[in-house]
Amino acid sequence: MKNNLFAKRMENIRASEIRELLKITEMPEVISFAGGLPAPELFPLVEIAKISSEVILEDGRKALQYSTTEGYLPLREKIAERLHRVFKTTVSTDQILITCGSQQALDFIGKVFLNEGDVVFCESPSYLGALNAFRAYEPRFIEVPTDDDGMIPEELEKLMLTCSRRKLIYVVPDFQNPTGRTWSVERRKKLLEIAQKYGVVIIEDNPYGELRFEGEIPASLMSLDNTGTVIGLGTFSKIFCPGMRLGWIAADTDFIEKFVLVKQGADLHTSTTSQMQVNRFLEKNDIDMHIAHIKDVYRERRDTVIEAMEREFPRSVRFTRPNGGLFTWAELPEGLNARKLLEISLERKVAFVPGASFYACRPKDNTMRINYSNMPEDRIREGIKRLGEAIYELSSISSIAV
Amino acid sequence: MKNNLFAKRMENIRASEIRELLKITEMPEVISFAGGLPAPELFPLVEIAKISSEVILEDGRKALQYSTTEGYLPLREKIAERLHRVFKTTVSTDQILITCGSQQALDFIGKVFLNEGDVVFCESPSYLGALNAFRAYEPRFIEVPTDDDGMIPEELEKLMLTCSRRKLIYVVPDFQNPTGRTWSVERRKKLLEIAQKYGVVIIEDNPYGELRFEGEIPASLMSLDNTGTVIGLGTFSKIFCPGMRLGWIAADTDFIEKFVLVKQGADLHTSTTSQMQVNRFLEKNDIDMHIAHIKDVYRERRDTVIEAMEREFPRSVRFTRPNGGLFTWAELPEGLNARKLLEISLERKVAFVPGASFYACRPKDNTMRINYSNMPEDRIREGIKRLGEAIYELSSISSIAV
Repeated sequence: MKNNLFAKRMENIRASEIRELLKITEMPEVISFAGGLPAPELFPLVEIAKISSEVILEDGRKALQYSTTEGYLPLREKIAERLHRVFKTTVSTDQILITCGSQQALDFIGKVFLNEGDVVFCESPSYLGALNAFRAYEPRFIEVPTDDDGMIPEELEKLMLTCSRRKLIYVVPDFQNPTGRTWSVERRKKLLEIAQKYGVVIIEDNPYGELRFEGEIPASLMSLDNTGTVIGLGTFSKIFCPGMRLGWIAADTDFIEKFVLVKQGADLHTSTTSQMQVNRFLEKNDIDMHIAHIKDVYRERRDTVIEAMEREFPRSVRFTRPNGGLFTWAELPEGLNARKLLEISLERKVAFVPGASFYACRPKDNTMRINYSNMPEDRIREGIKRLGEAIYELSSISSIAV
Repeated sequence: MKNNLFAKRMENIRASEIRELLKITEMPEVISFAGGLPAPELFPLVEIAKISSEVILEDGRKALQYSTTEGYLPLREKIAERLHRVFKTTVSTDQILITCGSQQALDFIGKVFLNEGDVVFCESPSYLGALNAFRAYEPRFIEVPTDDDGMIPEELEKLMLTCSRRKLIYVVPDFQNPTGRTWSVERRKKLLEIAQKYGVVIIEDNPYGELRFEGEIPASLMSLDNTGTVIGLGTFSKIFCPGMRLGWIAADTDFIEKFVLVKQGADLHTSTTSQMQVNRFLEKNDIDMHIAHIKDVYRERRDTVIEAMEREFPRSVRFTRPNGGLFTWAELPEGLNARKLLEISLERKVAFVPGASFYACRPKDNTMRINYSNMPEDRIREGIKRLGEAIYELSSISSIAV
């Protein structure tokens, strides 16, 4: 009865597979590689408690009041400075808009740019949360063949020529969710060339770039761009904490102007309180030292999960060895279905996310995303052991050798 | 160049007149009746500082982590209980979704319900922020003739028959923004009958209902409805503080399900930290006592602004005498333009919002919204005095007697 009341776009919006899964994995006995959650034991509670209370006592009439849509100026300044220092960009403060996490930025991108049927090019696989946000605006996705160095430029250019309504290219070049892959600088340059040639906007989503365990941070797309082609998304969720929902959009002011209009209608502004608290945290504490600590912990967990997979998984299972971020990505031999594997592994109280829903167009059912940031090492070892057993069991049930 | 990149919907999204105005009125020497800001001197800073720090120290790993899209369960329970106690509704906890202020709820309503060209019926005038949020979804607005008791039912029914794509009726029945008017119960019942007869959903936006200075809270539309026709919006912005951005949608679970899907794509969830802090505030403090205190202060300010307008304004200026909320609404004699009045009054360092932009279709240029919650009484008196002088000046310039 009610169904004819809803807008047509609602037919495209589906529940995220991860979200539904997270409900199961909230049971404490489940070893979960499913979420993308930071390690809560690393949140600097004492410092955050201190600054939270100080901001209210010293400046509460401002911190609890309505504020400007663009965001709290001192925080925007700090973000611009930090982007310059860490990612070599040259964005100014007025090119920063504060959002409720970078998920909100993804929604705004859909709202500002996408008419029904406009084309969004994305990696194969791509970030599920972005695909879901864009789907509300009824675009057409084109999945671009992608290898360990990023999108394959020749393939992208071939696909560009197949359609006229090209609008956006969405990429996560650093420690991609879900694969953990990082693009080569060569590929970044090629992407920019192609985007500029065809007048397409690039969305560079970079929540994990600072969580690099080895080597130098490569040139960001934004730092390579001097034409305003790239819109950068960032967040405090992975380097500080996700609960406060603080992210940002960095872009040409022509774009920021539109995002501000959209943000005004969407929620007026992001929490003044959270913005002033994070700003004060950055003033009173050394966030670089905090990030270094997070990286030390995650590096060990990455080592642990890779070692365990090498030991416990059949040789025929391939997986990525990321130099940073939160995820590794595994591919089972053809014919083995990761959703079925999940059923078996849940019986063993182990969860992960089947990879199919990370593909915009052509799901590969034999893929899976494994998160390693949210658990101590002994749980990781035990979880991967059970997951290995589940793979052998699936192989035997499916009569497909591994 | 960039303009052809933007989605068509962006042509409908304009900067809010209030927002632009608020930039001017941030200068401390300006006496501003323009914003809709609560009085920041009433924020309970000591208590909020205390609970902010306690939540982080005692439960920070949860408070700073990702959480469920629906919102923090204990807070949803408290909202459901409160709605029952104050507004006599029977909504259960699973009928509550936490949003980033009720502005976000307005955006979600557009997203869930509106196809391009769908009809939204609204009061004349109506809340600007709602009109702007809905505009992103390209509806057609129909302005329904409205008097001091609410929409005129016969007029609404006549207008219902003029169109086939009727979808929503948006109303603020208690101390409406911008007019301060409250609907009679009789009119509420009639509205429900008509909505049910034509299968149209009612949005009852109620940010001010608890700020009643005289008399009893009348039956809310939601409490009168037993068919799931009404979607209720609420917020902590006016009874607690707006800076944290906490509001809610109360609706039939069929609707909530859709809103949750949309919220997931829009920002995953509202700040866990803010939700747990407000929840703790409600546990440890008496919010009713706090609201009683706010009401005492605003009642005096309402008395002051009305007395001052009676004294300082020409008799031909009509204005509302609200029994609660934050606003009064004035109508200048025909032919006097409130935008021109604003120019004159800004020279005298007094601001208000011209009323034209609160009309979805047919702006009345001689109207203005006056906020009285944000200033002490001596400033209100001085501001209205200057505004009165400005009206006389405008009358003389325009050669229209007042």
